[in-house]
Amino acid sequence: MPSVDLNCDMGESFGSYLVDRDELLMKYITSANIACGYHAGDPAIMRRTVRLCLKHGVAIGAHPGLPDLAGFGRRKLQITVDEAYEMVVYQVGALMGFVLAEGAVLQHVKPHGALYNMAAVDAELSVAIAEAVYRIDSRLILFGLAGSELIQAGRKMGLRVAEEAFVDRTYRADGTLTPRSEPNAVIEEPEQAISQAIGLIKEGKVVTDKGSISLRADTLCIHGDTPNALMFAELISSRLVQEGVTLQAAAGMRG
Amino acid sequence: MPSVDLNCDMGESFGSYLVDRDELLMKYITSANIACGYHAGDPAIMRRTVRLCLKHGVAIGAHPGLPDLAGFGRRKLQITVDEAYEMVVYQVGALMGFVLAEGAVLQHVKPHGALYNMAAVDAELSVAIAEAVYRIDSRLILFGLAGSELIQAGRKMGLRVAEEAFVDRTYRADGTLTPRSEPNAVIEEPEQAISQAIGLIKEGKVVTDKGSISLRADTLCIHGDTPNALMFAELISSRLVQEGVTLQAAAGMRG
Amino acid sequence: MPSVDLNCDMGESFGSYLVDRDELLMKYITSANIACGYHAGDPAIMRRTVRLCLKHGVAIGAHPGLPDLAGFGRRKLQITVDEAYEMVVYQVGALMGFVLAEGAVLQHVKPHGALYNMAAVDAELSVAIAEAVYRIDSRLILFGLAGSELIQAGRKMGLRVAEEAFVDRTYRADGTLTPRSEPNAVIEEPEQAISQAIGLIKEGKVVTDKGSISLRADTLCIHGDTPNALMFAELISSRLVQEGVTLQAAAGMRG
Amino acid sequence: MPSVDLNCDMGESFGSYLVDRDELLMKYITSANIACGYHAGDPAIMRRTVRLCLKHGVAIGAHPGLPDLAGFGRRKLQITVDEAYEMVVYQVGALMGFVLAEGAVLQHVKPHGALYNMAAVDAELSVAIAEAVYRIDSRLILFGLAGSELIQAGRKMGLRVAEEAFVDRTYRADGTLTPRSEPNAVIEEPEQAISQAIGLIKEGKVVTDKGSISLRADTLCIHGDTPNALMFAELISSRLVQEGVTLQAAAGMRG
Repeated sequence: MPSVDLNCDMGESFGSYLVDRDELLMKYITSANIACGYHAGDPAIMRRTVRLCLKHGVAIGAHPGLPDLAGFGRRKLQITVDEAYEMVVYQVGALMGFVLAEGAVLQHVKPHGALYNMAAVDAELSVAIAEAVYRIDSRLILFGLAGSELIQAGRKMGLRVAEEAFVDRTYRADGTLTPRSEPNAVIEEPEQAISQAIGLIKEGKVVTDKGSISLRADTLCIHGDTPNALMFAELISSRLVQEGVTLQAAAGMRG
Repeated sequence: MPSVDLNCDMGESFGSYLVDRDELLMKYITSANIACGYHAGDPAIMRRTVRLCLKHGVAIGAHPGLPDLAGFGRRKLQITVDEAYEMVVYQVGALMGFVLAEGAVLQHVKPHGALYNMAAVDAELSVAIAEAVYRIDSRLILFGLAGSELIQAGRKMGLRVAEEAFVDRTYRADGTLTPRSEPNAVIEEPEQAISQAIGLIKEGKVVTDKGSISLRADTLCIHGDTPNALMFAELISSRLVQEGVTLQAAAGMRG
Repeated sequence: MPSVDLNCDMGESFGSYLVDRDELLMKYITSANIACGYHAGDPAIMRRTVRLCLKHGVAIGAHPGLPDLAGFGRRKLQITVDEAYEMVVYQVGALMGFVLAEGAVLQHVKPHGALYNMAAVDAELSVAIAEAVYRIDSRLILFGLAGSELIQAGRKMGLRVAEEAFVDRTYRADGTLTPRSEPNAVIEEPEQAISQAIGLIKEGKVVTDKGSISLRADTLCIHGDTPNALMFAELISSRLVQEGVTLQAAAGMRG
Repeated sequence: MPSVDLNCDMGESFGSYLVDRDELLMKYITSANIACGYHAGDPAIMRRTVRLCLKHGVAIGAHPGLPDLAGFGRRKLQITVDEAYEMVVYQVGALMGFVLAEGAVLQHVKPHGALYNMAAVDAELSVAIAEAVYRIDSRLILFGLAGSELIQAGRKMGLRVAEEAFVDRTYRADGTLTPRSEPNAVIEEPEQAISQAIGLIKEGKVVTDKGSISLRADTLCIHGDTPNALMFAELISSRLVQEGVTLQAAAGMRG
């Protein structure tokens, strides 16, 4: 029976700036990527989000980003591979503190924003990130864009990986996402997104403007920051279940 | 045979601001308190300092502080007990990341600066800090001012504690440090400092302006940020050895 | 004819954390206190808020706070008077940059949060803040709690001051606000708040639990961060106008 | 008689991290670029550095950088032109606060580090920076790499500009600096640097590996962060004077 992990970015509040949707989304997802204080998040929200995950049975992941709260980690920063390694160790460690304090288990690490995008196409940066994750705990699962350099680096390092696909973005024939600067980059229609999700999970395929291509999707990213995020999360999780897909956290799947 | 731990604050560089004395001091101390990025330190220096400790056989400790790089964590900040708990978990976790990545072991946690001073006299704050340490790893040793609330909170929590004394500060009859605002607060004469150290370790006593009092000292703080820090560290470590005192990290001592 | 200034904190977004009520509130107030990047605000929102003020004819003020984004500037920090002076010059200058760039005029400076509260009762801190404002531009108006040390320091420095009163807080017989820790500290009933506002403006009096006292109110603080802020701002501004009170920015009033 | 401005980066301390060479260098330079808190500097050091400039008769300039204290503003960050405009207004305004508070005058603005290098080759970014400077005060002088996009944008905006040359870097035939990654990028020999300075000022020429080219130099950058900075600053200023070159701040020169 086909199965998939549904992951969502969580714990993105900071200080008195509250992003209050997390608990509502918890019931529809299987893995949470928790911000670690660099692009978003702070110690209070990290603690609360780890607890929310335990309460809802959602697997816990670290979501390390670039040190750029003002830009939410979305602006590329010219970092060295050493800096990448070090900022991942720091942030994953910080979240590990809360995971240990709650007697929980850390399942995965997914780089955030510009760090995720930079790593996807940069082999050296990916090796540094994968090494950071591996050295902290070799049992951690590394989340990355399906088919990306990060996924390859994780595999070579000996880590379990989860290849991530997007249901609200269109793909190009080479397996990369259509850049947001182009028309049709974003899938706005829920039925089209669900259709893409089902194709990915059941057939390992996605439709591009030049025909269908193969794409492995171990985990689907559910965006929590759109106006209809909650409604869409509910819809996709229920429709996938109706289609006979098992929703389960990455750790429960065969590597 | 009497023994004592010599601890020193380490890893206090930040970005391009380098504090370059660490490696030279390593040979004279047994425990290092490593800054965790809040009052000083950054991921690069944390990694480097953990490695330095391994190279020199110095026990590794976390030195969490208030989130105040501009004030070096020395300015009191009105935090809640929850905030204290959370900032300790975050920072100890972050250092734990580097400790795990290097296959090392974290020995202790010593709050820094204003957080250390606030905890010394605030029972609730001390409980929050002790709980943070205990929940991350109950085998960690909590360093605090000898006889302080923090030491009491650590003991009640079930943690091993190391009572810290100062060799370059005078004490009052109630066991507290003479405030820096008063004359004779600081001991500038090396022989007087060494004499105080020996009295503390061999007899468990310290001289005050109203006579000698009992004071337990498991660990002595060696300041690394004074002009003669290196010379003094060398002097005190060699003199203590001459006096038959064993220098060893806190973890090696009987709890 | 009685007149009063209605001021409100504005520009409290940061990066992707948007607080979106500002433009709606602009039509009901006469002065805006714009966050300067220490406790809230960033360059983008400062620029936008200065422009909003110009568009709506609202007088522009700087709202310098403690360097504590995580705590929104509400946690007391043990700063020196020099640090207070310097952080006010820095923040007022930064806002002045946007004011100059838009060809606008800076009307006033109102310390934020803990800095405001600390200054209210600390004469030395107040002198430092007043001096910072005076040295940047001696024509600036200093906003402070009615009857506070800050108001006195401003007057002695030769600055125009605006004594601020609160319509949603009760007062004690000595003219200070009832601490939030006590019952009845906050006025929740709109009619009671409006009644307090009218008493302050028309008679210069406010009711306390021990009878009515004199209190000067040049400017009333309208909180923008409560659920009913917009409704209340509309209500109080329209009711004051009905009562024959002229709403005008502090700069337009006789000093 | 030929004349030139000698500028140096100043005020690069932060909190307890002190860079203590500033006062010693003041006597050899004519313009200071003062860090504004983003890549280095804080309100205390900004105030002190403005005062040092007044004491030594050195012209005051703002040195705005990218918001990256950890990277000292040397790492490229993917900012929008709006963000560039806003961060320049914010930082120049902040320094203007201290300039106003001391009754001084702001002479110039020179972008720092990666922002300087990015602007040198990016016309749109340069327009945004030039516009920020112009809108704050159209009398300010914009410092930029000789022949760069920033210089062109400043001229088009109607600003006075000062074209900057380097005496410790070699040039390529197209007038750009030899990248540091190449051999011979840096001039280590003092006499060669002085010779390059004299050629630039007296003849408007610089030697490249493909022969001599024309290059205008209104201001020479003196690096303050090298081991021999002080000795070199003394040497170059005295040698230029011996050669009949007048050292004077940019504002005193014909535009």
